Amino acid sequence: MSSIWRSRLGLSIFGQSHAAGIGMTLDGIPAGESIDLDKLQAFLNRRAPGRFPWATSRREEDIPEFLCGLVDGKTCGAPIAAIIRNQNTRSSDYDQHRDMPRPGHADYTAHIKYGGFNDISGGGHFSGRLTAALCIAGGICLQILERRGIFIGAHILSVGGICDAVFDAEKIDASTLSTLREMDFPALEHENASVMIREIETAKNAGDSLGGNIECAAIGLPPGLGDPIFGGMENRISGLVFAIPAVRGIEFGAGFYAAQMLGSEHNDPFYWDGETVKTRGNNHGGVLGGITSGMPLVFRVAIKPTPSVGKKQESVNLARKEPAILSVRGRHDPCIVPRAVPCVEAALAIAVCDALLEQ
Amino acid sequence: MSSIWRSRLGLSIFGQSHAAGIGMTLDGIPAGESIDLDKLQAFLNRRAPGRFPWATSRREEDIPEFLCGLVDGKTCGAPIAAIIRNQNTRSSDYDQHRDMPRPGHADYTAHIKYGGFNDISGGGHFSGRLTAALCIAGGICLQILERRGIFIGAHILSVGGICDAVFDAEKIDASTLSTLREMDFPALEHENASVMIREIETAKNAGDSLGGNIECAAIGLPPGLGDPIFGGMENRISGLVFAIPAVRGIEFGAGFYAAQMLGSEHNDPFYWDGETVKTRGNNHGGVLGGITSGMPLVFRVAIKPTPSVGKKQESVNLARKEPAILSVRGRHDPCIVPRAVPCVEAALAIAVCDALLEQ
Amino acid sequence: MSSIWRSRLGLSIFGQSHAAGIGMTLDGIPAGESIDLDKLQAFLNRRAPGRFPWATSRREEDIPEFLCGLVDGKTCGAPIAAIIRNQNTRSSDYDQHRDMPRPGHADYTAHIKYGGFNDISGGGHFSGRLTAALCIAGGICLQILERRGIFIGAHILSVGGICDAVFDAEKIDASTLSTLREMDFPALEHENASVMIREIETAKNAGDSLGGNIECAAIGLPPGLGDPIFGGMENRISGLVFAIPAVRGIEFGAGFYAAQMLGSEHNDPFYWDGETVKTRGNNHGGVLGGITSGMPLVFRVAIKPTPSVGKKQESVNLARKEPAILSVRGRHDPCIVPRAVPCVEAALAIAVCDALLEQ
Amino acid sequence: MSSIWRSRLGLSIFGQSHAAGIGMTLDGIPAGESIDLDKLQAFLNRRAPGRFPWATSRREEDIPEFLCGLVDGKTCGAPIAAIIRNQNTRSSDYDQHRDMPRPGHADYTAHIKYGGFNDISGGGHFSGRLTAALCIAGGICLQILERRGIFIGAHILSVGGICDAVFDAEKIDASTLSTLREMDFPALEHENASVMIREIETAKNAGDSLGGNIECAAIGLPPGLGDPIFGGMENRISGLVFAIPAVRGIEFGAGFYAAQMLGSEHNDPFYWDGETVKTRGNNHGGVLGGITSGMPLVFRVAIKPTPSVGKKQESVNLARKEPAILSVRGRHDPCIVPRAVPCVEAALAIAVCDALLEQ
Repeated sequence: MSSIWRSRLGLSIFGQSHAAGIGMTLDGIPAGESIDLDKLQAFLNRRAPGRFPWATSRREEDIPEFLCGLVDGKTCGAPIAAIIRNQNTRSSDYDQHRDMPRPGHADYTAHIKYGGFNDISGGGHFSGRLTAALCIAGGICLQILERRGIFIGAHILSVGGICDAVFDAEKIDASTLSTLREMDFPALEHENASVMIREIETAKNAGDSLGGNIECAAIGLPPGLGDPIFGGMENRISGLVFAIPAVRGIEFGAGFYAAQMLGSEHNDPFYWDGETVKTRGNNHGGVLGGITSGMPLVFRVAIKPTPSVGKKQESVNLARKEPAILSVRGRHDPCIVPRAVPCVEAALAIAVCDALLEQ
Repeated sequence: MSSIWRSRLGLSIFGQSHAAGIGMTLDGIPAGESIDLDKLQAFLNRRAPGRFPWATSRREEDIPEFLCGLVDGKTCGAPIAAIIRNQNTRSSDYDQHRDMPRPGHADYTAHIKYGGFNDISGGGHFSGRLTAALCIAGGICLQILERRGIFIGAHILSVGGICDAVFDAEKIDASTLSTLREMDFPALEHENASVMIREIETAKNAGDSLGGNIECAAIGLPPGLGDPIFGGMENRISGLVFAIPAVRGIEFGAGFYAAQMLGSEHNDPFYWDGETVKTRGNNHGGVLGGITSGMPLVFRVAIKPTPSVGKKQESVNLARKEPAILSVRGRHDPCIVPRAVPCVEAALAIAVCDALLEQ
Repeated sequence: MSSIWRSRLGLSIFGQSHAAGIGMTLDGIPAGESIDLDKLQAFLNRRAPGRFPWATSRREEDIPEFLCGLVDGKTCGAPIAAIIRNQNTRSSDYDQHRDMPRPGHADYTAHIKYGGFNDISGGGHFSGRLTAALCIAGGICLQILERRGIFIGAHILSVGGICDAVFDAEKIDASTLSTLREMDFPALEHENASVMIREIETAKNAGDSLGGNIECAAIGLPPGLGDPIFGGMENRISGLVFAIPAVRGIEFGAGFYAAQMLGSEHNDPFYWDGETVKTRGNNHGGVLGGITSGMPLVFRVAIKPTPSVGKKQESVNLARKEPAILSVRGRHDPCIVPRAVPCVEAALAIAVCDALLEQ
Repeated sequence: MSSIWRSRLGLSIFGQSHAAGIGMTLDGIPAGESIDLDKLQAFLNRRAPGRFPWATSRREEDIPEFLCGLVDGKTCGAPIAAIIRNQNTRSSDYDQHRDMPRPGHADYTAHIKYGGFNDISGGGHFSGRLTAALCIAGGICLQILERRGIFIGAHILSVGGICDAVFDAEKIDASTLSTLREMDFPALEHENASVMIREIETAKNAGDSLGGNIECAAIGLPPGLGDPIFGGMENRISGLVFAIPAVRGIEFGAGFYAAQMLGSEHNDPFYWDGETVKTRGNNHGGVLGGITSGMPLVFRVAIKPTPSVGKKQESVNLARKEPAILSVRGRHDPCIVPRAVPCVEAALAIAVCDALLEQ
């Protein structure tokens, strides 16, 4: 099974980059929820290509058509289905990749898995374009969460070697998150953004690309969401986050840095903040035993550099069984990280909404 | 849903640390597979407590009783169920934690989620002891995989700040992995192990604990295992790895370091090795588009320091709604990392066996 | 969870009768399967309304648009998604039913479940129209099965009190099934069809409706498909067949009649037919212990009379909390049974294809 | 996947008839529910063998041992696991059936599916004994439902050709259901029970067996449980009921008889009973569009005659590829229907509890 995710909510994602369209079905959303389509579109626009001078020049407006699930702007209890037409027709740009798989892409593994019948064009079902469908589902969940006082946001923690500040994990507030959501290149400190953007431009000019890290948070979560063992918030979130093609790692709270800490440092002491139990420090990232503690849920993901680079690369010719030299044509982002930010938020929103509805 | 995982295989994990027992059901294993119970026991012994002078002195032999699923040493197609009796009865050690949750443990979040009805004793269902059940399932899968030429192994990459070498990700071989599996403290370089062990002893003497990282690999994988979007090997593996209570992060291939690389560096060029397509370098960690490439599958996980530390810690009294000072009694590992190694191998074995059977 | 079914295959069904459209996603179909869209359309036409003088006059051509999953007429391994636009816009015919639920329909139960936010128009997501999506999935599976020598067919066993002959359950052959598939009103004996059709016309003229039974079979099945306990062919088939709104019962082999038999009569003796093990008689309906025996898989389903009848009916006014008298307007089939035949075949095809791919 | 069922609740059933034991894991039950183990035992005793003079003389007390999930008699939120030891060791009674499959049993289909590695002894995982595990889960769910005013009961509707009265489907009450639960041979009319019992004795004396029908009901259900399409109460209940090996059919409300009714007869008119919407008549069996209406949920299942009969039967010798004559030794019920009654109740209880917890 590949593209259906099922828990309390169900999510089916479909489409190929150059097929007639892509889309999603989202099942299990309660009836009577108002969905603001303009707000949803604004969220989708953050993922859409073509917003930066240095980004891919492929310009497509990702405007979903809702086929069902909404009546007069409100959910009706039936599955919500939405599709986005592909405006780019199948391109000869990709013909060469059937026999000459692009390094860092799924061309080779898909060729093996599907016996050569896979849709090679634009990466087919493996294209980053499919994350638009994830963002439709996530955008709907975000609105449902916000109505319940739960807010989600993210920033670009690093690009190449350049780093932003990290969240003050104990004190993230709604205003910080909403400010980030309105930025084209969301960073906690403006000057960091500027340096990262310059770094991306340099890579682009060299026919190369860059990766980076994203830090994402949810606040306003009630304690008690999630389950032990296989149902932990970490299992759920990572199961969704790895649906974003470029993600290579995920860590919660102190994450990999925890390996360098003493237990007495890493443990977050409990205290009373009025009637509420909180922790001093948030090394646990808002999750203990798979279950939310009420503290901000914080995690970071690693995004690999865009594998499509202009530079010549070594590959193989699968048909002739000989070496090959490849040059990836087409229009590509030199750094996918800014467009991945809303995708990561979407994955978190779906996981949280699902856990919340299970209560 | 918490403790049932279901894909091509199904795995149900049950038990609490101080209940009558723990166990697992593993459903979907093909009939006719020989299971060597001595070999399985040897695998389980690697997870068992009490093997090190510096480890917890709680000594329990984790000997599973197989209730069904095996006939004359071979799988019969029916679900395999095994239980392990708990030899430690419910202990008054934990009574205080009902009202005074231990920092870094699930005591507080479980209290909220289950309205105070959770089994507090020994961490209940959240105890690391439950990983014995994971290891039974994983140990069975390991034997099935080895019969098909797939080998899994892992080493301790770091403890505290002390690091081992990393796998030579292009060239991991079966002999390296099998040597590691026979070491009490598996490290690629012997002197690293010695330093790490000293570091653990130091922490123990200070009434403190340490975390660390584990690097795990599978070799001999055919290309083509796994699926796109939600069915990627990364989604599957992380969904199982986060069932190990102390895991705080996971990264595949170059992982978080990919964020500092150029695309031209990170892409692994394809080449022909005889009739086989391989890659130079293995930044992709053996997975492209969620699907195995045939190169070694490599990932790393972050293990947090054992939250049970002897030092006094700040907490709250939930009943009296006042602050509290806590001292965790009982017998605890100052560093859980060595015992987590077979657990991580088990999680990987289950994910790989599942994907293989789906073919 | 309502409208996503997930096993080895995944099926998401979406849409409401009067929304923009309906559709389905089918996930897990192997790559490289040719799908003959004309043949699929011919299958869908058997379900489409308006083929009989006595059927509903709502005439819609149910022509699916395939958004993805097919490349050059072959499956590409990615999910197959298809939509059908609704040509009938939302109708005021249904406004009265928001407060006055139609007896025998889901108006009342959906009203309660969705707090009045459900799409009342045309029955919304509960409409029989959604079975067109089931038939797209089933039609695809049928082609895959036929390529492997597995054939499925069904006939109308009864309408009102009028009965057709039953299948000779030991000897059903492909030619019988293919003849049935080409009939507008499939019956084993022509004269039975004529009487049933007259019966339907009589009911229609009286402003009333009729139900009936359908008998369905699959032949060419290898022995060994399906699993014990929850994975039996019976569990799987009934889980899909009850997705057809009008189905009220299902029985396999001798079914309810088994209750009147002696064990010595009901047991089907095994014998050798050349190299093949067969049974004398087929009271077991081709399934023993949930697993196919290689004999024809035979089951029957009960279809209730169309609940939309012209006659006045007693109901309630939910808003005013008073009694009401209702008259269902609109265009309705006086007997849904002929159009349900391909739906039942579709449900069986999906269940069998799923079990076959699990092998 | 065979023996794990997963929805809001998760249920894993394991064991073979002559293995060390059988058992179940039930995941997702809320914390804090009191489970009366004596009451549960009384429920299990209704399924246990050896209660009738005419029943199998295999006498085993089915006393489950709860390994976990309960603390001080209350659920603790963790999975509940219980096992029952098999007191009968592996018997040579079954050796002949490895090569000579018993008609009406799963011996042949299991042999094919599992390549001869299946556990033949006592039917292995296909044994009716596994329904004891289903009854543990069902018995727990029954207690949870009763605490919420939902009651379940069933009676033997027919054995051989002899029929009991049917439920007055509009007016079933808790007292009728509780009276039935206390009867060894539950029938609405005492004289029907006497005739059926005589019929069974006659069959037994002839070395033969009988099947029958069971009618089951749930009352006190809130309207709104269940979902459309694949999530209907019918889909859910049948998915569980067909886990009982002998079940050959299921029908809801008027069921197969609906095929003989006019729509105007079959539709149940709505009316106000005080503040409550009810229906006159209950042909819909308490379910409309897959969702409960608040009326009694009523269904019937067909139970086939016990396939183990003393009479000589024709079979095949799979090893020698020649015909064989078989005589089934061992101790068997001449009619399994009375013992199947609590199993059907258990299946319904699990389905209803699951749907209720999803709310």
